[in-house]
Amino acid sequence: MANDKEVAHGASSKKSNPNPKNAKKKEVKKETGLGLSNKKDENFGDWYSEVVVNAEMIEYYDISGCYILRPWAISIWETMQVFFDAEIKKMKIKNCYFPLFVSPGVLQKEKDHIEGFAPEVAWVTKSGDSDLDVHIAIRPTSETVMYPYYSKWIRGHRDLPLRLNQWCNVVRWEFSNPTPFIRSREFLWQEGHTAFATQQEADKEVLEILELYRRIYEEFLAVPVIKGKKSEMEKFAGGLYTTSVEAFIPNVGRGVQGATSHCLGQNFAKMFEINYENEKGEKAMVWQNSWAYSTRTIGVMVMVHGDDKGLVLPPKVASLQVIVIPVPYKDVDMQAIYQACSSTVTALEEAGFRVEADIRDNYSPGWKYSHWEMKGVPLRIEIGPKDLANKQVRVVRRDNGAKKDISMEGLVDGVKNLLSEIQESMLNAAIQKRDACIEKVTTWDEFVIALNKKKLILAPWCDEEDVEKDVKARTKGETGAAKTLCTPFDQPELPEGILCFASGKPAKKWTYWGRSY
Amino acid sequence: MANDKEVAHGASSKKSNPNPKNAKKKEVKKETGLGLSNKKDENFGDWYSEVVVNAEMIEYYDISGCYILRPWAISIWETMQVFFDAEIKKMKIKNCYFPLFVSPGVLQKEKDHIEGFAPEVAWVTKSGDSDLDVHIAIRPTSETVMYPYYSKWIRGHRDLPLRLNQWCNVVRWEFSNPTPFIRSREFLWQEGHTAFATQQEADKEVLEILELYRRIYEEFLAVPVIKGKKSEMEKFAGGLYTTSVEAFIPNVGRGVQGATSHCLGQNFAKMFEINYENEKGEKAMVWQNSWAYSTRTIGVMVMVHGDDKGLVLPPKVASLQVIVIPVPYKDVDMQAIYQACSSTVTALEEAGFRVEADIRDNYSPGWKYSHWEMKGVPLRIEIGPKDLANKQVRVVRRDNGAKKDISMEGLVDGVKNLLSEIQESMLNAAIQKRDACIEKVTTWDEFVIALNKKKLILAPWCDEEDVEKDVKARTKGETGAAKTLCTPFDQPELPEGILCFASGKPAKKWTYWGRSY
Repeated sequence: MANDKEVAHGASSKKSNPNPKNAKKKEVKKETGLGLSNKKDENFGDWYSEVVVNAEMIEYYDISGCYILRPWAISIWETMQVFFDAEIKKMKIKNCYFPLFVSPGVLQKEKDHIEGFAPEVAWVTKSGDSDLDVHIAIRPTSETVMYPYYSKWIRGHRDLPLRLNQWCNVVRWEFSNPTPFIRSREFLWQEGHTAFATQQEADKEVLEILELYRRIYEEFLAVPVIKGKKSEMEKFAGGLYTTSVEAFIPNVGRGVQGATSHCLGQNFAKMFEINYENEKGEKAMVWQNSWAYSTRTIGVMVMVHGDDKGLVLPPKVASLQVIVIPVPYKDVDMQAIYQACSSTVTALEEAGFRVEADIRDNYSPGWKYSHWEMKGVPLRIEIGPKDLANKQVRVVRRDNGAKKDISMEGLVDGVKNLLSEIQESMLNAAIQKRDACIEKVTTWDEFVIALNKKKLILAPWCDEEDVEKDVKARTKGETGAAKTLCTPFDQPELPEGILCFASGKPAKKWTYWGRSY
Repeated sequence: MANDKEVAHGASSKKSNPNPKNAKKKEVKKETGLGLSNKKDENFGDWYSEVVVNAEMIEYYDISGCYILRPWAISIWETMQVFFDAEIKKMKIKNCYFPLFVSPGVLQKEKDHIEGFAPEVAWVTKSGDSDLDVHIAIRPTSETVMYPYYSKWIRGHRDLPLRLNQWCNVVRWEFSNPTPFIRSREFLWQEGHTAFATQQEADKEVLEILELYRRIYEEFLAVPVIKGKKSEMEKFAGGLYTTSVEAFIPNVGRGVQGATSHCLGQNFAKMFEINYENEKGEKAMVWQNSWAYSTRTIGVMVMVHGDDKGLVLPPKVASLQVIVIPVPYKDVDMQAIYQACSSTVTALEEAGFRVEADIRDNYSPGWKYSHWEMKGVPLRIEIGPKDLANKQVRVVRRDNGAKKDISMEGLVDGVKNLLSEIQESMLNAAIQKRDACIEKVTTWDEFVIALNKKKLILAPWCDEEDVEKDVKARTKGETGAAKTLCTPFDQPELPEGILCFASGKPAKKWTYWGRSY
């Protein structure tokens, strides 16, 4: 915190330009080392890597595909976790923790499942200098870790439903393009694993969880998602059907699977012998679900909202919602300005906002504006001599740059309204951008044109796996093949006699197609 | 939940003995499959394994040394986590997440440190079918994972202090006796890693964190601990000094290190080049701490409080504080009893207690009493026809078996008082038992006698490493060698001229000795 000496020093830092808007971009960069060298519209991949690092969310690690999640990212994760954890506890789902390690016999029990994951499994073969007798896998997901014990614990109908969740790390040693948050070799997630007596109960839970995932994206991260069902090709390896929330990144024209809620049917139950005695005294088999969302959520948020100044954080998840910055001028009573900053922080803190003042004396206001813009803080409050004289503060929105004066008296209400406005308008802006990318096509030619225009394509489909494979093969190119993203639950009317855009067979449904992460 | 049919069925289950105290132990076991086959005083190790499994805290896993933490255990972990996390956030410590994996070069940078951990490190050498070019270690602790980045992030005095924490899993592939919670190959913990400009700040934090660990044990787990400093032999590998909270298990006469708060000094800073420019513009080196507590806390709690009926949970951490059990009798209006149970649950829930009714119709009250005693629920409420008539409930304490009638009217206050009494008297009882084991000795002969009597031994010591090694060697036996547990901060007066119990040299301090986990 500032002592008198620092304040005096701070007062003299006015020689730096207090308003970065007036400064030429290159000069600011030279002076401060801030700013992004890549633009979102020009070089999206590099822009993204630069943003997550410069905003201090991610540090690249010396093992490829692994990333350090810094406090600025983890605090967002924790906010979502508090919400989701409370919601599933209301549903009587309980938390547990299963081991990181899986023995090979168990891992390989479900054939389709292991085929899906085997190439990505990391194996421990040594401890200290000794070779292990049996190699041990690190969980890529915990179906095979957990279900042998579900088989043990579930005996009678009274043991059902069994509904467990765990917050943990998982490892998938992928070799394709690692991307912070979006595709990393280790990531954090929650994984829910539940068993029911009837498919009806399982089906119901799949959708309840999917709705929570939608709320995480839309209510917390201000990212619009589409709820739907995955195709047979894209469903979870070994499961019955997969539902997902799908987001879309307009700049690159790629879909991104936001989170998945799977009904596993009775397939794992069969392999792991998860049987019980039902109310009639007969042997029956459970119905299972598994569902997960991961730190990928944070990456999607960065991609959707970030701009050329850096991160843009929705107020609900921002670990800092308001940054207060004193604006020194020559021959001005800086002490009074610092005091106003401090009482502003106190008032907002007491009202429950996450707020700090940046009173560092070795940076100019302009540097600070850029710094906190880079970090995406939703609201900036500037306090200078004029504000002081007028008993007001200047507030600047990160999402759209809009400026406004608020009276000191109306501070708390003003900030409250602005933050909820920002949250809402970030979602609305993202919906608009996303919707502008949706293109409905009915023919192959239209499909190809739309794909090249990086669209999120809604097309009538015959729902045949071979046709999806064929579309993939025909669209293989530099930027990746197109595949189904999901069949949205919210189906437009399917005109009678309409044909599949790809096969010419009768279409069964509208399905979203596109390239994806 | 009970439907009418089930209630009717439940009413007929009165044929089972409603009071397990009147039932002969063996009969109860035969009837219900409940009860422990081992006694705490007779066969402590087997008793412990049986309790953690039968109380549904732990399930043994098919990989040795790994355990499944079931909801009954994880909820305790979460309660402590909520407390500790809020406390360190008040101290401006921030959460982050570093990768599970360490590259060998970095791991081996601090010589003493890697010597301490190398034999226990698990190595990943394969992914899918491919051998990795460079073997990758799984973190046994994260000093070497984190500090290269501390070196990068800390440049000037304004970057200090840097105070980070992470909640994560770590792996130590030990081959000595695995014990659930106490010694497992993977465990959950928090690890704090902080860097300061001065040793003074570091020293202060070491003790602040240690005080939080004391509070976890004493205020939450009702387990008394001794705060003190570890000997040179027992301190953290590569650190400057280690403080700890030490618990004691009277039944086996073993100390157990409860949690540790280390000052690392400047040793890691030297190896990882964590330098900064101080206020005078000179190059300086940081002072570092690291500190951790783990799921071991839960094991210590089980060992200290458990009895021959099972677990005994302190109310503050019990995921269920009160269990309500209807007591059916012949020709009684069961519907009214179930209603009283339900309104009791509602009233207590609304008052903020964690409470459930066990209205299962396929178990007798006696079975339910044993079941919930096994699980350690602090308070049982029984509601039978007489209670209903007298507008009261019968409450039974898990910790001491005391019974009491509480009027329905005074329910909430009565339960509130009882739960805080239980919490307090569990700690007091544990203090008494622990203190009864403390023996002050001044000679080698007294020491050997006390050790054979499984005491927690306080002895004057010369503080020389060779002497501790010698004591270890001379006491090596079936039940393990004696070592220093800690030098308590709370030092009795050291009489002038008093000699070390082991070496006969002048003593420098009183130190606790004993066998330990």
